Amino acid sequence: MSYDDTNIFARILRDEIPSVRVFEDDDTLVFMDIMPRADGHCLVIPKTACRNVLDATPAQLAACMATTQRIARAVMAAFDATGVTLQQFNETDGGQEVFHLHFHVLPRHAGLSLRPPGKMEDMAVINANAEKIRAALAAI
Amino acid sequence: MSYDDTNIFARILRDEIPSVRVFEDDDTLVFMDIMPRADGHCLVIPKTACRNVLDATPAQLAACMATTQRIARAVMAAFDATGVTLQQFNETDGGQEVFHLHFHVLPRHAGLSLRPPGKMEDMAVINANAEKIRAALAAI
Repeated sequence: MSYDDTNIFARILRDEIPSVRVFEDDDTLVFMDIMPRADGHCLVIPKTACRNVLDATPAQLAACMATTQRIARAVMAAFDATGVTLQQFNETDGGQEVFHLHFHVLPRHAGLSLRPPGKMEDMAVINANAEKIRAALAAI
Repeated sequence: MSYDDTNIFARILRDEIPSVRVFEDDDTLVFMDIMPRADGHCLVIPKTACRNVLDATPAQLAACMATTQRIARAVMAAFDATGVTLQQFNETDGGQEVFHLHFHVLPRHAGLSLRPPGKMEDMAVINANAEKIRAALAAI
């Protein structure tokens, strides 16, 4: 399967559509999922093109995992989380909806299931949660 | 949280308890999940000690992701899968049950949900699926 650079994460990378960004480095970008399955749910993507894990380069995977670890630690602090779940979907039947490699980072708490997918969150809540992550990243 | 080297994956690494292995290299081991949520469900772990993503080294994460990609490609071929889902759980509230870093690789097919967790599979089925993955790895 080939890479289609009109996917929404490619457009976010080009600033053609808005996103609530919490972190970036040379190789990766992290922004809030606007349909969060947990407070603080965010997405880690490479800045360069690849469809998913099946066609990624070792460098893209390593960079994404280094950033994913950084964000996992930050959300633990930002939300007093007691766990973190990572999910990564490949191809439609694997659960993928946007065809630019991404890792879901989900802060978790005891007794709290992930919310069902597909419900848009209020942007004030998204922005407040993003600010908590940015503050945690600055402190660690 | 510290690493407890009596966890069952550490014991699998030391060959103290059996596992159905499908791949290993210098840094990682892959074996079948005996409570598979999909046919071909397997686990990628580092050979060295770490609890989860929160305390892993960049080298452990990069090695696990490189192997995870290799296994993802192999299970696509081995099971004529049309997608792959990756899951990775950190701490009990994040869904982790064995406290040695591991990545779940789940072959997926259209219209087929993941099976509920916790049901032991017949070992003949596990062994047959392992053999399919080994054959796919040898062919790619």
